[in-house]
Amino acid sequence: DKFAKPFNPSSSSGLATEAKAATDNSNDIETPMRERMSTFVRKMQNKIVENLDKLEMQAAQELGVTPKLFVRDEWVRKEGGVGLSCVLQEGNVFEKAGVLVSVVHGPASANLIKQMRARKKEGVSDESGVYHMFAAGCSMVLHPHNPNAPTAHLNYRYFELVKEGEEKPVAAWFGGGCDLTPSYLFEEDAVQFHRVIKDVCDKHDTEYYPKFKKWCDEYFYIPHRHETRGVGGIFFDDLEHGDHNNLFKFVEECGLSFVDQYVPIMQRRWNAPFSAEMKRWQQLRRGRYVEFNLVYDRGTKFGLVTPGARIESIMCSLPLTARWEYMHEPAEGSKEAELIKVLQKPREWVV
Amino acid sequence: DKFAKPFNPSSSSGLATEAKAATDNSNDIETPMRERMSTFVRKMQNKIVENLDKLEMQAAQELGVTPKLFVRDEWVRKEGGVGLSCVLQEGNVFEKAGVLVSVVHGPASANLIKQMRARKKEGVSDESGVYHMFAAGCSMVLHPHNPNAPTAHLNYRYFELVKEGEEKPVAAWFGGGCDLTPSYLFEEDAVQFHRVIKDVCDKHDTEYYPKFKKWCDEYFYIPHRHETRGVGGIFFDDLEHGDHNNLFKFVEECGLSFVDQYVPIMQRRWNAPFSAEMKRWQQLRRGRYVEFNLVYDRGTKFGLVTPGARIESIMCSLPLTARWEYMHEPAEGSKEAELIKVLQKPREWVV
Repeated sequence: DKFAKPFNPSSSSGLATEAKAATDNSNDIETPMRERMSTFVRKMQNKIVENLDKLEMQAAQELGVTPKLFVRDEWVRKEGGVGLSCVLQEGNVFEKAGVLVSVVHGPASANLIKQMRARKKEGVSDESGVYHMFAAGCSMVLHPHNPNAPTAHLNYRYFELVKEGEEKPVAAWFGGGCDLTPSYLFEEDAVQFHRVIKDVCDKHDTEYYPKFKKWCDEYFYIPHRHETRGVGGIFFDDLEHGDHNNLFKFVEECGLSFVDQYVPIMQRRWNAPFSAEMKRWQQLRRGRYVEFNLVYDRGTKFGLVTPGARIESIMCSLPLTARWEYMHEPAEGSKEAELIKVLQKPREWVV
Repeated sequence: DKFAKPFNPSSSSGLATEAKAATDNSNDIETPMRERMSTFVRKMQNKIVENLDKLEMQAAQELGVTPKLFVRDEWVRKEGGVGLSCVLQEGNVFEKAGVLVSVVHGPASANLIKQMRARKKEGVSDESGVYHMFAAGCSMVLHPHNPNAPTAHLNYRYFELVKEGEEKPVAAWFGGGCDLTPSYLFEEDAVQFHRVIKDVCDKHDTEYYPKFKKWCDEYFYIPHRHETRGVGGIFFDDLEHGDHNNLFKFVEECGLSFVDQYVPIMQRRWNAPFSAEMKRWQQLRRGRYVEFNLVYDRGTKFGLVTPGARIESIMCSLPLTARWEYMHEPAEGSKEAELIKVLQKPREWVV
């Protein structure tokens, strides 16, 4: 049983302590998918962190201040697995930014198996079977200082369930997505973000983008506010049919394209002029972000009830600061009201 | 059917527009309980708002600034009922303070009846029965500016279920409580808050305080943080056995004693000196308050899934501002660490 042996963090399926993996096995179709994904999530994390560090350095230079870079924080899961959290707080561009990788494994809880049955994973239908899980993922939330600059979120993950005594997983699937949450609407930013990810989707399956864009709008809907969290992106789960090598290539390209989705937006927004009033509006929007994440987000809810879950990683998605005012309503015709309109009725950004 | 007729806001069971009810029927045992409670929650709201306004005026005078008083905001529930929200934002003493009354009635949803059956309300066991609900309550959350001054919460409520065609409720019960959430521990404040409410409890039943104090510590526990929200108070629900006149008197005295629990604390803390570091710690504690309210609080969760619930009232409990830092840990032996210790192991404040 592959999962029973102690996790070896220096193997290629783990997270090496050094900054880069010795060999990139993510494109080797002979390598087990869990190892390819472990390598890929690290690679994606590195690419994002490097590019955001660069943005911080560029900003520090322009402002004539000391750059503040990501801090790396490794952890070990007692029940099996390791993680690497890269977090930047109170930087020049970002108020709070977290790019987190985790590669965990171990016995699948009864609760998890029950959920998987509800999600029609037929491989776990044996009531007396003992199952092990493996999960590798990278998740990221970026909250910039500047109210003109949008918050971005990304998560790409791979999941396997293996029945004890068997080699081949009884279920294996990919999930993920990315979405943008501006405080002020700049159409060109929403178009940029969607355009890049649509191009990736279209290369793999022209049905992906329309389907996953809609799924994203639906997933990030806040019912009690009658609005979506942001201007969307893509969201998918249970991607398991067809050739897993192709699915992996799709997810890999999605993840590696994030820098192109987001960095050009930040380059035009991070230092744009803003008023105290605009900052206050951003803080109110951050409050809505907190509401979505704590009340509805499946990942957060799942994390909060999972024994041994790392609470600091789960809560890393929350903004550094947020605000709630009683009965706040943006003035008719204002920039703030314009954003709300889009959140109430999701738009098609690219066709 | 008493509940089918349109609600008359000028009747004594409603909330008159004028500041005080024409007649105080809360002590008339011949008056139906729902009317006595409607009158009482208004009376409690008035008493609290008046005393907090006084505190704000006193503070404004000391600071030589304009006082900022509570704003009153009446609303009508389409499905039946009315409310009066009194809110003060960015005052001199309070960052955000809400004292909300609602008196609502109407058909009981299938979801509510299901919940009531789970809570062993035997009067609603008739599967084919049609039920109506009545609820009168006052809830309050006060978030002061000064990190030395504690946040306070209170809620006292009365609930009735009536079967269609019947006069006498098939179930009727009281619930409520009060609790204190300091950012910095001042033992004398915790003792004061508990002492006043223990005295009220003891007058009615010496088993109340120990039982309700424990219930409060358990209810306000945040499992994912392994700590309670604050230093507690009392919490009770389903108070329905015995003489309802006595239960009413108990709840009434609890509610009317809040000013004595809290105002003396505020008088010594509202203007105590503090550092930027202390303010930041308070903001982090406010983050935990948000976590409890959005993830666990039964009232909030119930409100979020109730059709026609007033979202601005539900979210009024959230602080004006809150903060989340990754991996924040107070220094060993610091004032901040001292608070955490108490939250991890609730203490007996009065014996």
